[in-house]
Amino acid sequence: MAIKVSAPQRATISPEAAAFLAATPSARIPSFLIPLLTSRRMALRFRRQYQNSEDKAEESLIARYDLRVKPATISGVPVLEITPAHITPELEDAVVFNVHGGGFFLGTARDRPSLLMAHELGVRVMSVDYELAPEAAFPVALDQCLAVYRGLVTQHDPRKIVGVSTSAGGTIQLGMMHKARAEGLPMVAALGLFTPGTDVSGAGDSPVANGNGRDRERTGMSLGFIRHYIGGADAHDPFVSPIYGNFHDTWPPSIMTTGTRDFNMSNSVRLNEKLTIAGVPTALHVSEGMWHGYNYEPDIPEAIRARSLVNNFLLAALRRL
Amino acid sequence: MAIKVSAPQRATISPEAAAFLAATPSARIPSFLIPLLTSRRMALRFRRQYQNSEDKAEESLIARYDLRVKPATISGVPVLEITPAHITPELEDAVVFNVHGGGFFLGTARDRPSLLMAHELGVRVMSVDYELAPEAAFPVALDQCLAVYRGLVTQHDPRKIVGVSTSAGGTIQLGMMHKARAEGLPMVAALGLFTPGTDVSGAGDSPVANGNGRDRERTGMSLGFIRHYIGGADAHDPFVSPIYGNFHDTWPPSIMTTGTRDFNMSNSVRLNEKLTIAGVPTALHVSEGMWHGYNYEPDIPEAIRARSLVNNFLLAALRRL
Repeated sequence: MAIKVSAPQRATISPEAAAFLAATPSARIPSFLIPLLTSRRMALRFRRQYQNSEDKAEESLIARYDLRVKPATISGVPVLEITPAHITPELEDAVVFNVHGGGFFLGTARDRPSLLMAHELGVRVMSVDYELAPEAAFPVALDQCLAVYRGLVTQHDPRKIVGVSTSAGGTIQLGMMHKARAEGLPMVAALGLFTPGTDVSGAGDSPVANGNGRDRERTGMSLGFIRHYIGGADAHDPFVSPIYGNFHDTWPPSIMTTGTRDFNMSNSVRLNEKLTIAGVPTALHVSEGMWHGYNYEPDIPEAIRARSLVNNFLLAALRRL
Repeated sequence: MAIKVSAPQRATISPEAAAFLAATPSARIPSFLIPLLTSRRMALRFRRQYQNSEDKAEESLIARYDLRVKPATISGVPVLEITPAHITPELEDAVVFNVHGGGFFLGTARDRPSLLMAHELGVRVMSVDYELAPEAAFPVALDQCLAVYRGLVTQHDPRKIVGVSTSAGGTIQLGMMHKARAEGLPMVAALGLFTPGTDVSGAGDSPVANGNGRDRERTGMSLGFIRHYIGGADAHDPFVSPIYGNFHDTWPPSIMTTGTRDFNMSNSVRLNEKLTIAGVPTALHVSEGMWHGYNYEPDIPEAIRARSLVNNFLLAALRRL
């Protein structure tokens, strides 16, 4: 069974988005099956399947945009340096610090968001190949991203670094920024957060309203996989669920994009409110009818628009210097 | 039966909001009953009931905040002038131009949003007592608001006028601004839109996802009443459904607040995207777990926060002069 899209819903999304939803299977999963379906063994199996299909999509983007992808190491952590064919004038020394998504157990540094970002923003991307759960639990990925960030701010003017992340990448990047600030590290010029996770405890309205058949992600399954990442930590620890941290006006200007179907939409709207109250320049962009991770579909008009709005926000921050 | 709020949803809203939802009845209405329940006769009956309870709430706010409420006439249209006990320094000559909500068939110029706005913003409010449907169909209310606006901009520096509206008031105010711009009238300094309607055609994701039991408003009932307002007009006319109008960067800076349960949430997020693309300074504030019209609850923390964010946005615009 596919995700249900009725006529009034179809009227306000692109035909491309409607076709995507119509092709997205949506199976009701009995809750007693979730521990089984999200076991360590299943996580690894799901990862192989996922990466097989992502590999093709990623290679196609690399060819299409003539990107140069080079493995490197920063502070002992593997990263991927993605260089676009054309760099935006005056941004030769700027760098995007990317933390990929994939529910803490999927994906690589070569994720579609970083490839699209390199091309569309015209800025070099450094993307972290952090260790995934279940092999590595919290705080391994966070500390690896922090180590890379520590290296980046010694090599680059931090006002020329922007942080970008998708989904669970946002959870790690935001938690890491809390930790970086506690350590006295400088902040990035801006953050671009695509359908970010900010709370891994499962709390919120959208996990209930969207995560049970309206989104392509299911809250129960997502929480099942997340327990491998949380390990023995507390889901309400601000480094684990960054929404529970303190936000001051020293936090970098942030833009977040989510969709009305995103099972993590509440994660974005709660962060936006916290940042606004703290006096941080923030922009919340909600895309009508869009799902979790819609942002990295190369050719869906809503995704193109969302990336373009994020890129404008990041460019303005990089040019403020 | 009350609106269902599960544990993960309760975790991210205030106890006051949870109590409100728990006390809000949510009856499933068979679609064949809707024409009957939204007939002209029922609209008038519902209006009496609604106004009885609103009268009490409004009188209590007037007493609580020591507001002065004075009927007047602008360009032959009845308005209410609401003067706060304390006017914000340097904003003695500023004015809030308020268009009340109520699905085009309910409410008066003395709506709670204008009373709260007068007190919390500390600015005089001029609120239009436009004629309601079913007695008066489109474009009567729009033209009455436009006539008042035409009068206001001759009496006041338009840079000292901010437009404020809730729900159907937003539909009228936004449509009216399209018409005012077409007439060459100056724009207001800013717009503050609370859970606005921007599309009365029923199109969108949230009317389906939220308007069938998650919100206190039901999409079917709302559309049933709206047909008295639309009359013989086209629901896709930009003066009827302002989302279908053209937005340029001459549009006033706008802030809109909605909630993740608002059956009109899509109306806000679609407007925010259109304005952002047009280059209009815009802010979208989505309140976690909030419903249509949550903004005028005097003591619910989420509503207080949303009003305060809107007021900050309007104050910044009024002080820009």
